[in-house]
Amino acid sequence: MTVPNMSDYDDLDPQIARDLVAANHILAANGVLDSFGHVSVRDPRNPERYLQMQAIAPRDVTVGDIITFDLDSKAIDANGRPVYRERFIHGEIYKKRPDVNAVVHSHSPTIIPFSVTQKPLRAIFHNGHFLGQGVPVWEIREFAGEQNNMLVLSHELGKSLAEALGQGSVVLMRGHGNAVASPDLKTTVFRAIYTEVNAKLQLQATALGGPINFLNEYEQLKAQNVDRPWATWKKQVGAS
Amino acid sequence: MTVPNMSDYDDLDPQIARDLVAANHILAANGVLDSFGHVSVRDPRNPERYLQMQAIAPRDVTVGDIITFDLDSKAIDANGRPVYRERFIHGEIYKKRPDVNAVVHSHSPTIIPFSVTQKPLRAIFHNGHFLGQGVPVWEIREFAGEQNNMLVLSHELGKSLAEALGQGSVVLMRGHGNAVASPDLKTTVFRAIYTEVNAKLQLQATALGGPINFLNEYEQLKAQNVDRPWATWKKQVGAS
Amino acid sequence: MTVPNMSDYDDLDPQIARDLVAANHILAANGVLDSFGHVSVRDPRNPERYLQMQAIAPRDVTVGDIITFDLDSKAIDANGRPVYRERFIHGEIYKKRPDVNAVVHSHSPTIIPFSVTQKPLRAIFHNGHFLGQGVPVWEIREFAGEQNNMLVLSHELGKSLAEALGQGSVVLMRGHGNAVASPDLKTTVFRAIYTEVNAKLQLQATALGGPINFLNEYEQLKAQNVDRPWATWKKQVGAS
Amino acid sequence: MTVPNMSDYDDLDPQIARDLVAANHILAANGVLDSFGHVSVRDPRNPERYLQMQAIAPRDVTVGDIITFDLDSKAIDANGRPVYRERFIHGEIYKKRPDVNAVVHSHSPTIIPFSVTQKPLRAIFHNGHFLGQGVPVWEIREFAGEQNNMLVLSHELGKSLAEALGQGSVVLMRGHGNAVASPDLKTTVFRAIYTEVNAKLQLQATALGGPINFLNEYEQLKAQNVDRPWATWKKQVGAS
Repeated sequence: MTVPNMSDYDDLDPQIARDLVAANHILAANGVLDSFGHVSVRDPRNPERYLQMQAIAPRDVTVGDIITFDLDSKAIDANGRPVYRERFIHGEIYKKRPDVNAVVHSHSPTIIPFSVTQKPLRAIFHNGHFLGQGVPVWEIREFAGEQNNMLVLSHELGKSLAEALGQGSVVLMRGHGNAVASPDLKTTVFRAIYTEVNAKLQLQATALGGPINFLNEYEQLKAQNVDRPWATWKKQVGAS
Repeated sequence: MTVPNMSDYDDLDPQIARDLVAANHILAANGVLDSFGHVSVRDPRNPERYLQMQAIAPRDVTVGDIITFDLDSKAIDANGRPVYRERFIHGEIYKKRPDVNAVVHSHSPTIIPFSVTQKPLRAIFHNGHFLGQGVPVWEIREFAGEQNNMLVLSHELGKSLAEALGQGSVVLMRGHGNAVASPDLKTTVFRAIYTEVNAKLQLQATALGGPINFLNEYEQLKAQNVDRPWATWKKQVGAS
Repeated sequence: MTVPNMSDYDDLDPQIARDLVAANHILAANGVLDSFGHVSVRDPRNPERYLQMQAIAPRDVTVGDIITFDLDSKAIDANGRPVYRERFIHGEIYKKRPDVNAVVHSHSPTIIPFSVTQKPLRAIFHNGHFLGQGVPVWEIREFAGEQNNMLVLSHELGKSLAEALGQGSVVLMRGHGNAVASPDLKTTVFRAIYTEVNAKLQLQATALGGPINFLNEYEQLKAQNVDRPWATWKKQVGAS
Repeated sequence: MTVPNMSDYDDLDPQIARDLVAANHILAANGVLDSFGHVSVRDPRNPERYLQMQAIAPRDVTVGDIITFDLDSKAIDANGRPVYRERFIHGEIYKKRPDVNAVVHSHSPTIIPFSVTQKPLRAIFHNGHFLGQGVPVWEIREFAGEQNNMLVLSHELGKSLAEALGQGSVVLMRGHGNAVASPDLKTTVFRAIYTEVNAKLQLQATALGGPINFLNEYEQLKAQNVDRPWATWKKQVGAS
């Protein structure tokens, strides 16, 4: 396997590369990603491209694993390295949402139960404000039929997922996981982690019984400063 | 950013400073604080002031991060360092409660479900005795209206929260977290941690079903020696 | 504070001392003991005595912390060191149960919910066999009245707890924790840990709904070799 | 105790030995095995034999602990070392299932509640696809009667367990744990871990209430690449 020399990235801001590595490590350290899942950022040098790691586990990635893709999710510089099979999730969201610059796909554990039951995952506390009145659940059977293999392995499936996401930040994938998108990497990491936290809280509140007092439509608009958590999470994983 | 030289604290007992740092680290290590939340102590040199860290994550603080505030939550010696936006929680509790000398605000995870459902959080075991017959829940909508942003960003909101706390030790903040207050730092840390433990136990007892046999009014008066947990928690985080 | 020189223990098998330290560390590392709780062994040199640590947190103890008590729970060689206030739990069980040589008192977290609700904690899997058809719950109010302080601070209360234990291995203490007793230290540690594991399993099975298929009376008699877990737990805490 | 020199394994691929050690450490690190449970592989030199560790805790094993067994579970080269009493689980599955080359027996915690209640454990997300429409539960009472000791201590019991497994990959053992089998070690480790993950998700979905949308029969056929998780788990435990 040929690993590209870092000189291939001469014109990529090295902080972008380090932040993409840090995002992978942070999401693994906080239980959102396990052996699977992936993170991408839109290429700051060319909005028609995005950057993502070669297909290894998120906690093991380094800057040498970065690969550039076009928005059709074709690798530009893989040089024989394996790519994530579900990269179409990323490419199709970037196509449909010019405001989005970072995407995470995960099997975030407490989110999956909400994808296979009837109650929508919605904002239960201030740090989950971006979940609004409830996030959509994408059902692959509606697009690939009963005989599907659960994975987003084509442009068409990626596109239908991006359409289900709409103008929101989170879409659940039934029996699989979720996709999280936002204008920048820090915010996407924040939302991926706090979607999981919100799901745990909502599960516990459901177990307590009785009606749940969710955030109202105004409270859901709360702006969130994500610099503080980003700074401490980077320290947590030893990122520079 | 100007960081004050420790000589600015010539007259502050250095053990107070180290204990305030230790309290932050202990609460982070025990899952009560994450990237957010804050701890304060009333200034032993001047009861009209309190000490709190600059606005960074609790697990990362050091003695150099301490800032002095007056009870209107105006920073005396920030020297350009950022301050917690919800510091009014602390100032207004110190104003209203001369018996209180240490306050914690957290998003303690298992406590939030009790703030958005109907069953009060109350003393289920001896180490949660201070929760009494049930703690109050502060609803920001009653003071800031439906169009609020969930945060305690003013004297007025801090004052209404302090009034909801009353003469107790814990007040829940709907969809947000809680505030814990007591006569000294060790006890406030103890109560912040054991409020979380009590919430977990009450959630589990609810899941078991049937009526719960809570502490009675006499059992809730139990005096608690907090020196032993404080000593071992300090060792846990390497504090001196 | 005077710490006794190890020479005070010239005639105590040093492996007994190390094992008592290891038991404290193992129970702390496995979440049965936190800042509180205590472990004791009957003194192999004199069955009318038992050995227990001075009153510090279990995870911090060393062999130098061992104190000898008579069965009235009076310290023989405390030399000014603080003793656990609830040591009567141990002394009274040793008095009543000559077959018992090791006792643990803990606030084992998942056990407390069973002490305040109506369903008995009972053997749900083979490693919890010693819980039998259900363990007794000791209600301090029956002995100390409504105006009690939740703690076992006297011979009389310790005696009533020992009577509630009967010929079993585990007794729950309402709103407080439990006491575990067996013929040897390894078995008591095993049972303290697997009482907690059994409680977690029973709580989950209850959440799944429907009747639970518990161990029958024959299955509850299963003999358990505790040497393997003891060996690996000692490695886990670095004990010799 | 005589420990065989590694030269006894001159003709065993050393990577097989290291992988068997890694599998033990991975399953312990991921909470599937505690002090108990065991892993085996069919001997690549002789399909009528299998390899398993001497009877110590999985997290402590090294290549020097490997023992060869025939399919009647008789040790070939124990040289006095203790063997797992329930090794018949392995031998009888290898006898009945020529397609199986690796077996795990564990007390995987969240799986036990499904073995004592009425709802079958079944595929709730893509990584649990191999659980199909629901896994069988083996009831030892049907074979050993009410007066059994819960353990698989004979060929007969091992055989009845293997028959309950059928052509599947997982069988639950009532009030005890489970057995997982597949064509290769990596896949068996993957399935042992994701059976636990699936159980946690199904428990949470049940707590959310309402009907659960499980994988359909086509989705359950999904092929799974297990190389990526195997690679990162090996790094996690420092395996080569």
